[in-house]
Parts: sequence; structure tokens; C-alpha cells
Amino acid sequence: MTAITGDQSLLREINRMALVRVVQRHPGLSRADLAKQTGLTKSTVSLLVQDLIGEGWLLESDIQATGSAGRRPTPLFLDGTRLAMIGADVSVDTVSVLTVSLTGDVLTGVSEPLAGKSPEAVIGQLARLIGGLVGQSRQDGRQLLGIGVGVPGAVLDTTGVVKLAPNLAWRDVPFQADLRQELISHEVSGLPIQVQNDYDVAALAEYEFGEEIAPDPLICLGLGIGVGAGIVVRDRLFLGAQGFAGEVGHSILQVEGPLCSCGRRGCAETFIGLRAISTQISGQPGDLLPVATIRALLARNDEAALLAARRAGHYLGVLIQNLWTYFNPGRIVLGGPTCELGAPFLDAATSCIERYAADCGLSLPEIRLSRFGGHSIAVGGAALVKHALLRPFDPRFRNA
Amino acid sequence: MTAITGDQSLLREINRMALVRVVQRHPGLSRADLAKQTGLTKSTVSLLVQDLIGEGWLLESDIQATGSAGRRPTPLFLDGTRLAMIGADVSVDTVSVLTVSLTGDVLTGVSEPLAGKSPEAVIGQLARLIGGLVGQSRQDGRQLLGIGVGVPGAVLDTTGVVKLAPNLAWRDVPFQADLRQELISHEVSGLPIQVQNDYDVAALAEYEFGEEIAPDPLICLGLGIGVGAGIVVRDRLFLGAQGFAGEVGHSILQVEGPLCSCGRRGCAETFIGLRAISTQISGQPGDLLPVATIRALLARNDEAALLAARRAGHYLGVLIQNLWTYFNPGRIVLGGPTCELGAPFLDAATSCIERYAADCGLSLPEIRLSRFGGHSIAVGGAALVKHALLRPFDPRFRNA
Repeated sequence: MTAITGDQSLLREINRMALVRVVQRHPGLSRADLAKQTGLTKSTVSLLVQDLIGEGWLLESDIQATGSAGRRPTPLFLDGTRLAMIGADVSVDTVSVLTVSLTGDVLTGVSEPLAGKSPEAVIGQLARLIGGLVGQSRQDGRQLLGIGVGVPGAVLDTTGVVKLAPNLAWRDVPFQADLRQELISHEVSGLPIQVQNDYDVAALAEYEFGEEIAPDPLICLGLGIGVGAGIVVRDRLFLGAQGFAGEVGHSILQVEGPLCSCGRRGCAETFIGLRAISTQISGQPGDLLPVATIRALLARNDEAALLAARRAGHYLGVLIQNLWTYFNPGRIVLGGPTCELGAPFLDAATSCIERYAADCGLSLPEIRLSRFGGHSIAVGGAALVKHALLRPFDPRFRNA
Repeated sequence: MTAITGDQSLLREINRMALVRVVQRHPGLSRADLAKQTGLTKSTVSLLVQDLIGEGWLLESDIQATGSAGRRPTPLFLDGTRLAMIGADVSVDTVSVLTVSLTGDVLTGVSEPLAGKSPEAVIGQLARLIGGLVGQSRQDGRQLLGIGVGVPGAVLDTTGVVKLAPNLAWRDVPFQADLRQELISHEVSGLPIQVQNDYDVAALAEYEFGEEIAPDPLICLGLGIGVGAGIVVRDRLFLGAQGFAGEVGHSILQVEGPLCSCGRRGCAETFIGLRAISTQISGQPGDLLPVATIRALLARNDEAALLAARRAGHYLGVLIQNLWTYFNPGRIVLGGPTCELGAPFLDAATSCIERYAADCGLSLPEIRLSRFGGHSIAVGGAALVKHALLRPFDPRFRNA
């Protein structure tokens, strides 16, 4: 925030979205409450709220009869019935697209194996799937607010360029611009398009669609082939100087440890990543077993699989300890396919971090599993659209 | 930022301080430039700037003759000649107090060994020293904006309570309130008092008193008996959920490594802290050699000292690597007494982090030494006062 801006239409949008954010944090407030909370005059609040109700952002519940004389002020809530966002998850082998309501309900979705890994192939396939859901939303009478995409790489958020996506072998792909162009042939235009790192949007899914006020800082740790964190600090996605903050899979957990895909040694990924677990089980360096295969081995108490999952879980505990000391988070959310290994993996992490907490006499931050499971990145894409629209004062989101 | 506030005097202060922040970032702007940058009307800017000049925040340089007809708009700068802050550094063995100008110049100062370690003794001694400098400022005609104190512990910043300062054996000390009370007997009252962790305020010294716009995120790594980081994110001190963010000395660098003072094993402090270096040299666990002694050993190429400094420096490189991946900082500043060990320590850190950068083909963040050397915490106390006054919209700073 610098000063109160003089751009009247932006100022109005800032005030409107401030009202939506306050209702999101405090469902059931009345217009008078909103005036108190924001400092806006009652008449301004009334005008803006009437617009927001008309557009589908807010709804007012019925006036409730009270025991005393008179009527209670009408409580306001986010409206989950009329507006929606499209969220997409581009992973290394699959593309998934969902339509998500303003309150985080998944309305409909579609998922396909990736037809090819080139940017053209992926963007073409993605545009086709999005086009289908946009058509369906039109039929259903849902108004769409925008399209948000999570990609497994580093994204320059002001331009939507994918700087580097190692597992897709992409470098400097103008993803947002190309997707916008490709969508035209599917009769989709005029919608804001946001692109961001997959773990970053997964964190926004937890932050924007919670059933209560999310603690801040909020860290969402993504566990799969790669290991990374999406971090929310002071009500905004935290990206760092170049947008690469949260690359915690390449923090060092052991000096001169195993060789990592990044070229360094002893990175967290070499202990916690799916390849590390697979290699521990099979003895084949660089091996990658499907999560379902490892689950099946664990289910029949395969000793190598149990040892591997517990070892990875222990190191996950060390990584959580380090996130704790660096960020002092209010909540850490665990997501990604490796979580499906269940107790042998997760319990080892919990017992490691509980021991650290006991050793120093501090109480642990809250640690929980992602509420969106396998959908967390696609729901996160939708959350990114909402996060950006609710923060019109942030110049990072102007170029969508 | 929620909405535009309706509290007119707060709104006015937010706008005034926004103007000061813009001039700080862009020295030499004219009133017309400020109107453009902030969106305020020219007449509002003129009125507020006139006040700010009158109060000593801003100064206008002389109107410069130009080759062309007419006169150039008058450039505005921060005024370093009239306002000042008092900053204090309470360390484990010393208390230092400085008077610092709005532009970061140290005007005068005093330092004494701690007379005792109880909160009463320390606060009494500190109040006496502050009282002396306040009296001197009155004689010099400098107007004081407030008092800021850096303490070696975790501070609840809304109340100024020192939650825990292990090396002083303090717990739940109402530092701000007690200092305010004690200052009355030294005829000091009515000044805002801010208290914060020592490494946090050291980061603010770098951030608020730089000669150019500081990169964001900015991390200031403090190296001494303890190891900790002060972090600035999006123009504000980053403190985490309970105010303990940046406790990086207790991140794990080696699973099951040496026992740490915190009760855990393998913390960064057990490799980089002054006790770890001393123990490596003397072979006596828990030993603590003065930095001057270690410097003297290094100066005569003592082999044990060289090995110990290089080993600690190597682990410092690992810690910097981890800070890099977690925060993607624009700049990392190294401060604290251990930096005085010089090349054997610092070069080992540089070569470690350069190797990591080369291994993964990325360019390093900027790494530099603190500009304020041994004064960085006391100057940081003064910077905290400035940081808080320039951000009147932040409720954390209201209770000073």
C-alpha cells in the first residue's frame, strides 16, 4: 500500500473487493458491520453491496424473526451459486480442469493423460478441455470470473511466462499468452488468465476456500517426484525476488548427501522425493515406482517398502522442522501423491517433528493433510483467480 | 490493506507517511511527481509537504537555475538534520545506545558493560543511558521521534513483552512497559517505545537506511553465539505467526548431529555458532573464546583455528543455500561478531554457496556484509522506530 489512489475506478474496485474479503473472513456480517469494519460510509457500503449481490458475489440470507421487537440486520454471505472459476492442473502426465464455485465447491471437471509434452501440445489440449467447461458453464448459467492454471515449474507471475519446468523440459514458454491465443479458436475470450507454480496454487486452495480464517503464514508442502512449498504471508502468495521462493526440495538436509536431479548433493528431494523412495525399495538408482505400487507393497508389509517410507517420513519431519524455524507458520498443510503412502510415511514425519518439539519444549504448529486431495492443484488454479480478483491493488495481477 | 479507512486523522497520517516513503525511495521528486506517484491531488500534496517540511521530515533543495526559461520543480529529500531516533542494543554483556538521524547517520552514542542480568538491572541501566542521550538531544535542538530497542530474544511485538531471552535467562518480561515506567524518573515521557528481536532490528537498519532501494525480500543473517535472521518481506518486517520467524540457527543441518543448546541435535548453531567454533579450536565442549582471541589465532595461522573457521564457514554456506531456496531473497546481509573472523570464515561460505550455484546453473543472490558493523543492532533500534512511524496503517505498531 502506498497512498490512497486517485484512480477512481480502481479505488471503487478496491473498496468492493475489500467488502467481499471482509464477508469471506466474517460470514454473516451486516451492512452496518461492514461499514464499521472498513471505515466506509453506510451509504457507500449499501450501494456497493447492492452491486455485489446483483453480480453474484454476495447473497443476503432471509431476514430472521427475533424475539425482541424490530428486525435484525440482514446477514451477508459469499454466494456460491452463481459465479465460478475454471482451475487447471498441468502435471507431468495428466491435465485436469475443474469448474469451482466462489465458495470452493467443485462443480464439474475433466481429466486426460497428456497427449504430448511440447508446450503446443499441452496448451492445445488444455484449451480444448477449458473450452468444453466454458460451454457447459454457459448452459448452466454460471458466470465465469477467469481461468487459473498450476504448472510444475517456475512462473514469472506478472507475465505468465513459464521460466523453467524441468520435468516437462520447458524453458521460457509464454504460457499465458499462448493459452489466450489458443482459447480463441474454442470461442473463449475476455476472461482473465492466471498462471502460477503448482504448489503455490495448491496453497491458495487451502487459503481461499477454507471453512474458517486460515492461519497466516500458511505453508502448503507438496510431496511427489518433486518437493516444494506454496507459502502465504500476510494475506498474499509469497513468491520472493524472482518468484522461486518455496523451492524447499532443494534445501540441503545432509552435507555431501546423495546426488540430486538439480546437480547439488543432499537436497531434501533426495530423501523425500518419490524417486528416492523408489530407489530405496528397488535398489535401482533413479527408479520411479507408481504410488499405487508402493501402497500395495506397504499393504502387505513389504519390509523394504516400510523402511523406505519410514526413512522418507523421518526426513519429511526434518524438513517440517526447518520450515517451522524459518517461517513460524500458523499451519502446515501436506499434499501431493506421496501422502497416499499413509501411516508408515506420515507417522514417521509426525514422530520426528514431535520429538524435536519436545526436545526444545515448544508446541508444534498445526499440521494437516490437504482438504482437496488429488484436486488441490486444479482447485488451486481456481483459487488463484479469486485471490487475484480480491486484490485489485496488487499490480502483479493486473496483466491477467 | 482492507479498505480505505474512515478515520480521518489516521487517513491523513497514512497519506503523510506515504509521501515520506515515496521520497525515501525516490529522492529528488517534486510535489507534482508525488501527486502522480500517490494519486493524491496536487493541492493535498502541497499542504502535506508543507507540514512535513515544517516538522523536519522533508527538506527542499534550492531552486536550481536551468538553461531553459522558467524554473525547475523543487526537488524534495528526507531531512537528516532535524529529527532523530534513539536506538538501543541490549546484548548478553553490553548495553549500547545511539542517537541516529532520519537518514541513518549516527549522531552520538554510549556503551557500557551490563551491570547485571536481571530485567530490573538491565532496564534501569538502559533508562539511565537513554535519559542522558535524550537530554543531549534537547540541548542540540534535535526532535526525537521515539526509542527502539533490540533484545536477544523473542518479543511479542504488539505488547513489547520479551517472551524468552535464553542467554539472559528472561521469560515473559514486560520490557516496553517497564522501560516506559523507568524512563519517567529520567524525565523522559511521551515518546513511542518499540522493542523487537535483535536480528530483526538489524535487518531494518539495512532496509530503512540504505543508500538505494533495498531488494525485497531482504535477509539479515546475524552470526554470534546464536545464529538468527531478520527478514523483510513486501516492505515489512516478517515475524511469522508468533513472532519467531527467522530462528534459522535451529534449523537442522545434519540429522542426529551435535547436541544444541535448544535440546535438539544438528541445528545450524552447532556448526556455525561461536561456541561451536571455540569448541573445535580448544577441544573443550561448550567453550566460548572471545572473537578477538580467535582472530589472533587466525592471524598467526593457527591450524586448529583455521580449520574451525573454515568448517563453520562451509556450514554457513549451506545455511545460506537453504535461505536462498526458502525465501528467494534479493539480498542477504551478514552481520554479527563472527563476521570479524574475516577471510577464513567468510571465504569458505562463499566458495560453498558458489559451488551450489554452479552445480545447478543459477546465479547467486547478492551477499554482502552489514554496513553498520558492531552498531547494526542499535542502529536497527532506531530503524524500527522509523519503520513503525512510516507505516501507521499497521496495527502492530499502534501500541508503542
